[in-house]
Amino acid sequence: MVKIFGNESLDDLILKDIRIIQKKKGFRFAIDAVLLAHFATVKRGDTIIDLGTGTGIIPLILQARETNLKITGIEIQTEVADMARRSILYNNLNNIEILQGDFTKLAHEYNDSFDLVVSNPPYYPLKGGKINPDVSLAISRHEIKCKLSQVVKTAARLLKGKGRFALIHRAERLGEILKEFDQVGLEPKRLQIVHPYLQEKANLILLEGIKGAKPGLEINKPLVIYENEGQYTRELLDLFYGGER
Amino acid sequence: MVKIFGNESLDDLILKDIRIIQKKKGFRFAIDAVLLAHFATVKRGDTIIDLGTGTGIIPLILQARETNLKITGIEIQTEVADMARRSILYNNLNNIEILQGDFTKLAHEYNDSFDLVVSNPPYYPLKGGKINPDVSLAISRHEIKCKLSQVVKTAARLLKGKGRFALIHRAERLGEILKEFDQVGLEPKRLQIVHPYLQEKANLILLEGIKGAKPGLEINKPLVIYENEGQYTRELLDLFYGGER
Repeated sequence: MVKIFGNESLDDLILKDIRIIQKKKGFRFAIDAVLLAHFATVKRGDTIIDLGTGTGIIPLILQARETNLKITGIEIQTEVADMARRSILYNNLNNIEILQGDFTKLAHEYNDSFDLVVSNPPYYPLKGGKINPDVSLAISRHEIKCKLSQVVKTAARLLKGKGRFALIHRAERLGEILKEFDQVGLEPKRLQIVHPYLQEKANLILLEGIKGAKPGLEINKPLVIYENEGQYTRELLDLFYGGER
Repeated sequence: MVKIFGNESLDDLILKDIRIIQKKKGFRFAIDAVLLAHFATVKRGDTIIDLGTGTGIIPLILQARETNLKITGIEIQTEVADMARRSILYNNLNNIEILQGDFTKLAHEYNDSFDLVVSNPPYYPLKGGKINPDVSLAISRHEIKCKLSQVVKTAARLLKGKGRFALIHRAERLGEILKEFDQVGLEPKRLQIVHPYLQEKANLILLEGIKGAKPGLEINKPLVIYENEGQYTRELLDLFYGGER
């Protein structure tokens, strides 16, 4: 039996009967992680690591997308990593492992060993935006424990040659992100721009780079979140629920 | 009287009665230049230069968008520069000057003197794509006379501090473009992705950088060209014809 605490909920991902443990209030996964889990290129048998896995939402979706994956999720917050571990246990998934720790300090044995690195890192520099009084949320949103440059450097170090790094981040930081990619030999290969509404400027970007690849970027069709106020686009519903509705 | 040759046409831009001289076959302006002319941020009284002005289409549209501009267009091909000059004469525009020459060799007196630099440069590296047998078209499409890095370096050198550089280019070269921007101190500030159809990947990007600005990129709503086969989107028609239909 997997323990679920009173301040937690057990939510149905509506995806191959998978359920996820989250806080009722506070630390819950956001749509961003779901977008990234569907954006990343995943191939059968891939060895994958998710930097800052939170509730483990990305590993849970990835393992539903492809077979024979071996996925590691690493999360710095003890309580959050524990929620992720219990979700993995609850779903009986023995191809996902959750590590509690600081991914910037991962041992050298992990170098050059992953086909795919994914990350939905904190979006806000410490000087930007109001810091959330909930420490757990603050760490997931602000660059308190790791900066963008550390995420990108770690990804490059952990990837095999020609391995992929997929991340989601704020649109306004795209220039900075590409600069960091360049500095560690990650070539941007695929970009998707996320707009809340079709007629609005972008708020997020999804980017996939390949370690040591040749230049040449594909920019996917735009991803639009809402059709109308509170109503997701067809495209997004398809992404969330696949053929399962 | 402005001379118009037998192999040329005089076309109505449907914009403040402006007409443009083009070849009947061969060297004619493309939609790309029009998109750029409408994308660039233009302010009253700006001093502007268009690198590789071709038929002069960009200066012609820019001067219709704002008052008191002082615009220089520079074009390396003698015959093409001559067409542009005659178009300017035909429209009686004394605030546009066309120079014939190589913009990478512009004298140092031009340094730090423009508020806005625009360019719709050749898109294709010499090794990429079939070279057009029409030399004039080949020069406008392939990096025969100037490479991307030279366009970006020249723009940075000609701009005043906080001046803007707006260009249009192939989507797949965005990574490379941002790298060049970074190397010369141009900060990417505004990006618009151009898709032939809403559900297709991008073919072009419009990018505006500011010399010496702080990081922070705005990604505009996507620009979609066609609604259906051969039918422009409402948005594009508005761009082309403003309130003039």
